Amino acid sequence: MGCGAAGFTAALAAHERGASVMMLEKAEQVGGTTRKAGVWIWIPNNPLLRDSGLSDPKPAALRYMARLARPHVYDAESTHLGLPSDEFRLIETFYDEACDAMELLVRMRALQPHHRPDIPDYYAELAEDETPYGRVVMPRPRSSPTGGTGFEFVEDLERAVRSRGIAVRTGCRAVRLVMENGRAVGVVADERGQERIFRARGGVVFASGGFTHNRELMLRSFAAPLLHGAAAPSNEGDFVSIAGAVGARLANMGCAWMAPIQLEQALTPEQARTNASITEVHGDSAIIVNREGRRVVNEKAMYNDLTQAFFEWDGAYGGYPNARLFLIYDHATARFYGDNSSGNPILPVDVEARHILKAPTLTKLAAALDERLMALGVASGGIRLAEGFGAELERTVERFNSYARTGSDPEFHRGEKAIERFFSGPARPGNDRHPTMYPFESTGPYYAMILAPGTLDTKGGPVIDCAARVISSDGDPIPGLYAAGNCVASPSGQAYWAGGATVGLAITFGRIAGLGAAAAAAGASLGGTF
Amino acid sequence: MGCGAAGFTAALAAHERGASVMMLEKAEQVGGTTRKAGVWIWIPNNPLLRDSGLSDPKPAALRYMARLARPHVYDAESTHLGLPSDEFRLIETFYDEACDAMELLVRMRALQPHHRPDIPDYYAELAEDETPYGRVVMPRPRSSPTGGTGFEFVEDLERAVRSRGIAVRTGCRAVRLVMENGRAVGVVADERGQERIFRARGGVVFASGGFTHNRELMLRSFAAPLLHGAAAPSNEGDFVSIAGAVGARLANMGCAWMAPIQLEQALTPEQARTNASITEVHGDSAIIVNREGRRVVNEKAMYNDLTQAFFEWDGAYGGYPNARLFLIYDHATARFYGDNSSGNPILPVDVEARHILKAPTLTKLAAALDERLMALGVASGGIRLAEGFGAELERTVERFNSYARTGSDPEFHRGEKAIERFFSGPARPGNDRHPTMYPFESTGPYYAMILAPGTLDTKGGPVIDCAARVISSDGDPIPGLYAAGNCVASPSGQAYWAGGATVGLAITFGRIAGLGAAAAAAGASLGGTF
Repeated sequence: MGCGAAGFTAALAAHERGASVMMLEKAEQVGGTTRKAGVWIWIPNNPLLRDSGLSDPKPAALRYMARLARPHVYDAESTHLGLPSDEFRLIETFYDEACDAMELLVRMRALQPHHRPDIPDYYAELAEDETPYGRVVMPRPRSSPTGGTGFEFVEDLERAVRSRGIAVRTGCRAVRLVMENGRAVGVVADERGQERIFRARGGVVFASGGFTHNRELMLRSFAAPLLHGAAAPSNEGDFVSIAGAVGARLANMGCAWMAPIQLEQALTPEQARTNASITEVHGDSAIIVNREGRRVVNEKAMYNDLTQAFFEWDGAYGGYPNARLFLIYDHATARFYGDNSSGNPILPVDVEARHILKAPTLTKLAAALDERLMALGVASGGIRLAEGFGAELERTVERFNSYARTGSDPEFHRGEKAIERFFSGPARPGNDRHPTMYPFESTGPYYAMILAPGTLDTKGGPVIDCAARVISSDGDPIPGLYAAGNCVASPSGQAYWAGGATVGLAITFGRIAGLGAAAAAAGASLGGTF
Repeated sequence: MGCGAAGFTAALAAHERGASVMMLEKAEQVGGTTRKAGVWIWIPNNPLLRDSGLSDPKPAALRYMARLARPHVYDAESTHLGLPSDEFRLIETFYDEACDAMELLVRMRALQPHHRPDIPDYYAELAEDETPYGRVVMPRPRSSPTGGTGFEFVEDLERAVRSRGIAVRTGCRAVRLVMENGRAVGVVADERGQERIFRARGGVVFASGGFTHNRELMLRSFAAPLLHGAAAPSNEGDFVSIAGAVGARLANMGCAWMAPIQLEQALTPEQARTNASITEVHGDSAIIVNREGRRVVNEKAMYNDLTQAFFEWDGAYGGYPNARLFLIYDHATARFYGDNSSGNPILPVDVEARHILKAPTLTKLAAALDERLMALGVASGGIRLAEGFGAELERTVERFNSYARTGSDPEFHRGEKAIERFFSGPARPGNDRHPTMYPFESTGPYYAMILAPGTLDTKGGPVIDCAARVISSDGDPIPGLYAAGNCVASPSGQAYWAGGATVGLAITFGRIAGLGAAAAAAGASLGGTF
């Protein structure tokens, strides 16, 4: 169930082992969130890394992953590095099996890996990261010189599946599991209004994505103002209730792959097709301020980290004053950094966009911004600009300009991490002080947009074990039920280890789920019990 | 199942309606977390409030509660104030039914209400709070002149129950539900090592508390370093898995009634009996600093708000640098504010306690603190003092002293809210500048203790409806299963409206659960189907 990276990989793995496979997809098109992805794939200790002379030994890789998965209980000295043993084993399984998943896709002609040893891990500076470069691969470059796109990757995955005769039914939404003697033996689905039952000899594999577009579930899962996101629009968390109804255990429901989003883009129907998430804050004369006109975060922080800035609680305010933040930049930044690339919020100067406010002075920009917030109503998150925002913004820009001139940001340490410089790109011509900072022009126009905290997708859901089996509330696997990708409690816990950790986990546990279902099917056809 | 405020109230309500009631309690003693509580009871529009000439109209009360329950979606203009309709109805039910719960306890001689119109709501300054004083009642004063203690309240509740012949079995832990045709008709329990089945004609009511002492569930539910707490030690979240196994829907799993805790107190077995939670940061020459020696929060902020300061994420650090914070105070503060009252971390000067570090200078205090952190190992949350902590602490104290002299804290607005001044108490003799600030003495000894984020208890779990029926993943009530108190997804969402919101909700929905089970029992004995 679900045709993104995890589902396709599960189908290919099961088919290769001789299983009869059918894929169901709720949306009208296949690809899920993978279709919209970058698409980096993070594979620890991958062969391209090893071929290039790098090494990625297991103990250090596990330390890096465990340290970030559960930072507050990480313990380098303990057997499972401080993690619950099952979580440790999931991470270990990822390290052990990720390469096999990649090689499966290569064998199936769904992936021609293109090594990106220039891309650092998101926490490359941590002592625990002994292989900060080399774990990222991409599909081979086609329309983009840097690597294949998510759209292209999905094309290749779909072609591989169809060339093997695997049926793919779109517009087919799982409604509930068919259970017999405690075993999942199929799904009841709604196929364009008609209820159909699909029975499975081996097993049912869910790879149906997270719950970003289930507003109530978002509201009830996050103790933070996280309601929007860039996941495929069909990612409504169906698996949470479907698996919940048969007693699955849930975890990580408060975790997500987070990114700031361009709020007004996310509110339009086009967000279903475009990507409103900001994964790279481009630009040097560009800052992010709060409703008081103050900087509150290192704007170049990796997107998942940057999103945490929106969550600050203020008891006197009785809410989240940073639930909406504002990206402010000048005309030179729009000229130097504006393009239509995914993840970059800055558009070319000749592109008009309603969500980008433009004004000749910072004061007028402030007025336009507050007016827009008011017009947004409840979508503003209750945020209005504080009195004195304009004057404070002027002071903030002045202070930022002085940092840009000296080439260092003592307040937020902007651009000091490897990943920040990678995302920000080369300095503009003439900027030899600091590649991510340049003084604002003294005259306008200036630009602003409203940012909200968002997701690429959520990463909480039913717990799986190392065999990608869904675990019930009593701790035992639910026979016949497998899952992978963003619909399960992610083996990464709360970590965003590196770009491509999403897809890397999806294909690794997708493959394991497919193998498990295929083995069960083989056993069933031999008369065995599973 | 469970003998705290919610369970006792459910039992009394059901018994009054003629049901045959049996109470089970996992611990060896009754009382749950109520036994350790303050015990304030927050009852909107209560008769003592009305008798004293105050008013608490429903629309305004609902706005206050909704605004804080879901601050980022609150919408004064919408029908349900921006909340999902079922959450709105839960809040409405609380307003409508809380008085009846109080009156039931009065009728049962379990409560003689003592009005505390001097206690402000926790967000008394919000425009939405039109009745900032008057909603708090307490049991009548006995050993304490200000009101009955949790211990005394539990004595009264137990006496009321026993005087009605209701059996109470301690040392009896529910293991799973007995289900027949989709209906909960009893529980299987472990009574001192022996498995027993208890059948229920009307219904099974869970009032078994949260999951504070289930370390794995805490780790997997909070995307924040929240692992400890002051709840009754038997609060291990049994109901999450018991209800999960029959398909209950979960919500608010990332929410808790939070308070800073004295870490080393919480790590000792005595924390089971004592209260390591800090609900009142007493003292004027007392500050809270982080590992860099800087203040990071208004120390007088209400405990639930104060706890949020521990959750700041730092991407460069790759973790939560404030996961441990440090309360620092001087000898005069110990002399003026030290006592053994619950919730006050400052002990009398003549009491030696291992968790309180004492040193003649701030520099030596810093050294002792770092040594203690090292000795704590993984319990330190990976926190060690930054280089330069001591020097920074000196500067921080100097700056604080200057604020104390001018009588205002421009950085954190300490002591500006009504509840902060209430908790902090009157100024020390001779302090006429600001009741919550006074310059540190220039000579030692100085004191320090390690603080961690904690809970009074969690407030996530199975979702209930207005009839306190547990809701399944498919949205329908699970017949025969009722729940209330901290074991359910709290109707308060993420809010801590006021002191006593915990117990107020517990008795309100406890009573409703008891009435529901009693009605079902009556129907069953008439041969009806439920």
